[in-house]
Amino acid sequence: MIRIGICGYGNLGRGVEAACLAAKDMELIAVFTRRNPEDLKLNSTTPVYSISEIADFKDKIDVLVLCGGSATDLPKQTPDLAKHFNVVDSFDTHAQISHHFDEVNKSVLGNDRVAIISTGWDPGLFSLNRIYMESILPMGKDYTFWGKGVSQGHSDAIRRIPGVLDARQYTIPKEEALEAVRKGKEPELTARDKHLRECFVVLKENANPKEVEHAIQTMPNYFADYDTIVHFITKEELDKNHKGIPHGGFVIRTGKTSAGVNHKIEYSLTLDSNPEFTGSVMVAYARACYRLYKEKQYGCKTVFDIAPKYLSIDSYEALLKHLL
Amino acid sequence: MIRIGICGYGNLGRGVEAACLAAKDMELIAVFTRRNPEDLKLNSTTPVYSISEIADFKDKIDVLVLCGGSATDLPKQTPDLAKHFNVVDSFDTHAQISHHFDEVNKSVLGNDRVAIISTGWDPGLFSLNRIYMESILPMGKDYTFWGKGVSQGHSDAIRRIPGVLDARQYTIPKEEALEAVRKGKEPELTARDKHLRECFVVLKENANPKEVEHAIQTMPNYFADYDTIVHFITKEELDKNHKGIPHGGFVIRTGKTSAGVNHKIEYSLTLDSNPEFTGSVMVAYARACYRLYKEKQYGCKTVFDIAPKYLSIDSYEALLKHLL
Repeated sequence: MIRIGICGYGNLGRGVEAACLAAKDMELIAVFTRRNPEDLKLNSTTPVYSISEIADFKDKIDVLVLCGGSATDLPKQTPDLAKHFNVVDSFDTHAQISHHFDEVNKSVLGNDRVAIISTGWDPGLFSLNRIYMESILPMGKDYTFWGKGVSQGHSDAIRRIPGVLDARQYTIPKEEALEAVRKGKEPELTARDKHLRECFVVLKENANPKEVEHAIQTMPNYFADYDTIVHFITKEELDKNHKGIPHGGFVIRTGKTSAGVNHKIEYSLTLDSNPEFTGSVMVAYARACYRLYKEKQYGCKTVFDIAPKYLSIDSYEALLKHLL
Repeated sequence: MIRIGICGYGNLGRGVEAACLAAKDMELIAVFTRRNPEDLKLNSTTPVYSISEIADFKDKIDVLVLCGGSATDLPKQTPDLAKHFNVVDSFDTHAQISHHFDEVNKSVLGNDRVAIISTGWDPGLFSLNRIYMESILPMGKDYTFWGKGVSQGHSDAIRRIPGVLDARQYTIPKEEALEAVRKGKEPELTARDKHLRECFVVLKENANPKEVEHAIQTMPNYFADYDTIVHFITKEELDKNHKGIPHGGFVIRTGKTSAGVNHKIEYSLTLDSNPEFTGSVMVAYARACYRLYKEKQYGCKTVFDIAPKYLSIDSYEALLKHLL
């Protein structure tokens, strides 16, 4: 059994917990938290410890799955913890990945550990599709679309506007753009061409809806470059109809192999729960992490370094017989 | 530059040739044929040799791409040639893959070579999707559909019926079955439920269409278990409208990560030319084959053994920056 620890117990931590419980070759040893361990209500009987005690588990855990955020938690946690543990994270700030890789690599190489960073679905499964598609169809162009799904960052940005009590923002790929891409037209698409932003907003008493709508639609980086639809709803409606954290998206590449001979490759995800699915991907990579450690293949890795067989619970013989 | 040889110059060989010409890191050294070399009309200026001369190229070629058929060519060619060359094949008789793997592995291990077998799209890219999907969503079910596309085997079977001059058979996935799968119903589907077979047949003079239609629709293994539509057309219509070798298909997995939390992963290919696309996949794996050889990772491999980074022409730094 692969002994797993979870570091951080928010939505993603709960997703990793669910995926570990579904994995027949894994045993959940401990959940670590910055909060008071007694305050956590788990979905399993896994013991909970303060993160300050984590060093005691150096030899009791095979892989530590890091469930903190990319903004402030992981840039420090992943390199720190990779000195003592094999780790998997879902660091997703695309522009910082190279730097994060270097920092983590320094930690693990000196300590004979394996770290797999930036797993999940984007970065993660979508990255895998981009590399396979580009390698196979070099004469072509690929496109990534996100949604329909909840963007936590955009929802938070709306909540910070004065007069807003609560909000939920959906990123929606535009059907016209998807269709143009699928037809192999290789269009040049702006942010506005690709995605629509739909916001469900609960106002505080006496707030001015016109002002809030304007504040949202003109917010730089988040909304100004998009067509943004704002709906005002009650707190009850928000809690009833917008509780989930669905997400998904598309990676599509069209290209040719010779003059006039065209091909299309399309990959899509439709997810009821972004954190549960991301947790499932991380747990598959935790299995790979354990196996690479056993093979002494130390170092920092990404999904690009991991041969697919390391993710599967099946024997190689079974894979050749049933999946190839 | 990676020095490539092509063994066999039918449709697949031509596809590999096109893909090599598109690869900036590859050089096409030679095409080998069982026919008279002077009879071959290539799409490039690559020199052509008789297969009997192939041993002279042991040190002149980095990877030999084998473009023979799975029925009789590859079971002998791949193990034989893997004694002297790094090789890539597209062996696609699913039931025989384990045996083929063992035979090839015996050849390469004793000779410090790398062989990658069963590349292409099924087996190949579809297999990759099955292993990733199953590893990430263990509680679920996946389905593979083929088409719309030309089945060479089924077209040949029709041509062997007395009274038939020429024929082309399309395998078509049934939309109702695709939709039931996409909805996450995890249906049990028979061969008839999943695919339709549509045949375009040119009769010889005086042949009886009723008899030919009956012979097709009742043919065991090939057609008896399917809904099969037969159209009779002229030779001119066949040559004009059914000259291409398009294909494609779908791998879809639906599953849950916890009670009531469902997800769908879908991968699809729409290919103008089956052999050109297959050739492109083989050439990406030829790149991987060369790199594994340089790293002395000898042995027989499948797509399950190959880390995605080995397929890409880009540096690892570029991959982290632009594709992850």
